[in-house]
Amino acid sequence: MLSRIAIPPPDTVAAAAAEAELAEKTMPPGALGRVGRLAVTMAAAQGRAVPSADPAEALVFAADHGIVAEGVSAWPQAVTALMVEVLARGAAAAPVLAESAGVAITVIDAGVASPYRTPPPGLSGAPVRAGTRNAAIEDALTAEEVAAALDLGAEAAAAALARGARVLLPGEMGIGNTATAALLAHAVAGLPLDTLTGPGAGLDPAGVTAKGAVLARAAARRPGPCVPEAALACFGGLEVAAMAGAMIAGAGGRAVVLVDGFIATAAALLAVTARPEIAPYLLYAHRSAEPGHRAMLAHLGAEPLLDLDLRLGEGTGALLAFPLLRASCRVLAEMATFESAGIPR
Amino acid sequence: MLSRIAIPPPDTVAAAAAEAELAEKTMPPGALGRVGRLAVTMAAAQGRAVPSADPAEALVFAADHGIVAEGVSAWPQAVTALMVEVLARGAAAAPVLAESAGVAITVIDAGVASPYRTPPPGLSGAPVRAGTRNAAIEDALTAEEVAAALDLGAEAAAAALARGARVLLPGEMGIGNTATAALLAHAVAGLPLDTLTGPGAGLDPAGVTAKGAVLARAAARRPGPCVPEAALACFGGLEVAAMAGAMIAGAGGRAVVLVDGFIATAAALLAVTARPEIAPYLLYAHRSAEPGHRAMLAHLGAEPLLDLDLRLGEGTGALLAFPLLRASCRVLAEMATFESAGIPR
Repeated sequence: MLSRIAIPPPDTVAAAAAEAELAEKTMPPGALGRVGRLAVTMAAAQGRAVPSADPAEALVFAADHGIVAEGVSAWPQAVTALMVEVLARGAAAAPVLAESAGVAITVIDAGVASPYRTPPPGLSGAPVRAGTRNAAIEDALTAEEVAAALDLGAEAAAAALARGARVLLPGEMGIGNTATAALLAHAVAGLPLDTLTGPGAGLDPAGVTAKGAVLARAAARRPGPCVPEAALACFGGLEVAAMAGAMIAGAGGRAVVLVDGFIATAAALLAVTARPEIAPYLLYAHRSAEPGHRAMLAHLGAEPLLDLDLRLGEGTGALLAFPLLRASCRVLAEMATFESAGIPR
Repeated sequence: MLSRIAIPPPDTVAAAAAEAELAEKTMPPGALGRVGRLAVTMAAAQGRAVPSADPAEALVFAADHGIVAEGVSAWPQAVTALMVEVLARGAAAAPVLAESAGVAITVIDAGVASPYRTPPPGLSGAPVRAGTRNAAIEDALTAEEVAAALDLGAEAAAAALARGARVLLPGEMGIGNTATAALLAHAVAGLPLDTLTGPGAGLDPAGVTAKGAVLARAAARRPGPCVPEAALACFGGLEVAAMAGAMIAGAGGRAVVLVDGFIATAAALLAVTARPEIAPYLLYAHRSAEPGHRAMLAHLGAEPLLDLDLRLGEGTGALLAFPLLRASCRVLAEMATFESAGIPR
């Protein structure tokens, strides 16, 4: 799947038209800084001189991680299913922020391990398996399971595109997934595991040290760099694979993909490593408080929009940054030009 | 006026209640970082355990600066009036961003020098005088004119509060006003004039050097620190005075004031110097690309929310940051708690 979807080249003609139009707006050249340029990037991605941030859709993929058995998270695995219930009924952070930002949200079960107390309303997806195997002792996924998770994400993105989405905001929920994301970024990008090991959803310093030992053990099962599919099979991350699939399919459909924090950026590392041509379709929402995020962003050459000590996941950072994309598009579409306003330069 | 308005102390009970409620939400403690804490600050300001960012209103004050005669701006003075026309008909950056953010906007003439081609629709305010005198050679305003400009801003804030506003976003339009703002920040806060002198709306390096010489000449007319009213009389800034008045009156009415960029922060310096007790009511939207803004923010101990190379003014940075305030309030008001979601901790 990672190699199947065609990625169109960015539309340089549309981008040039957007840039020229921006230069005519009634403000000093470049006065909106990075916010002004967002619309130019979006014009190239969408292939339209006047891009649109709306409609936008957040795709929140949930799954569990067998490595949680090693004590790498401050929370028990059962919390993933409980939080999916809260997400699906609109009461978690992501749906509240989606509502605030005017963004649609879909929650997708990519492989939650625990049973739900009540069937979550509107839950999408067909879980690939009930959580991954424990990557500290064995391969987390088979090659077929990796492919299924990538496809699940691509299909969720295709469905959002069919609903009209022009911007996708992939998010995730999965107890233990900072451990998996660290292993994936280490394997695919060669970043030091120590740099990538952090407190996640609330480990204390001793917990971080113990997590580091577990991650070192897991990484030793497959030393050296490896390709994205192999890394996913070794270390897992059903929701991470799904996010990567969604990013590639989103780019294939000329959607702008707004990348959230630590886990989403690990997915972007996988996706961009597999398909470098999707890079022009990605925007980076924020720099997470999870310490390893900085190294991932630097590896990608990404300049995130926000830096507000966020470390929640669920796509919340992307949802908080999204209004900047809308603002940029509306400036390009709606502001007067010096000529239309009759102002000499 | 600067001493007349009563400023209530921040409501520590409401803030503590907001903080306690935030800690119960279904996310790791502190996971929304600075965005989470915005609602706590707003609870203290508004005196409500569940604060609201809505309704919000941008107040864009326009005025001219006699010092423009010295060539301190890349644009001619007549552009102020032309841009007020564009602002008033909704086609400049600020009204477009206000619409995008769901914020009301009022444009107020505090002292525009040039005549309008057509009377701008919905323009508020009674201009204090047709621009300031040239501060490079004489006092820009009389004490009475300073008082009138402060009152104009306070009255605009009071009118917005009467319309229900709980967050105020003061903005400005005034060719040459980075020169005035630099002089004011130098006089009131003792910041070095060189640090405060920048390109504004587009001076080239030679222009910045020439502007620095003009500012040094103006500053030499009144060396040493001075109180806000004296600084305004010496150096002017009808729209800057109005913004300072609006900030004080806003705090007096328990509104949160979201401070924009270089000019608005100069107004905040004046307002906080005159009335330090308003500080808890101010939030800082962004770090401007105008180089001196960094020194002003540091002097105020302000940590701005965004850092996106903005340098437009009009309140645009505040309008771009505003959705973060709304998001924070909605998280506090709408998210489930661990208890309500039945999730054990």
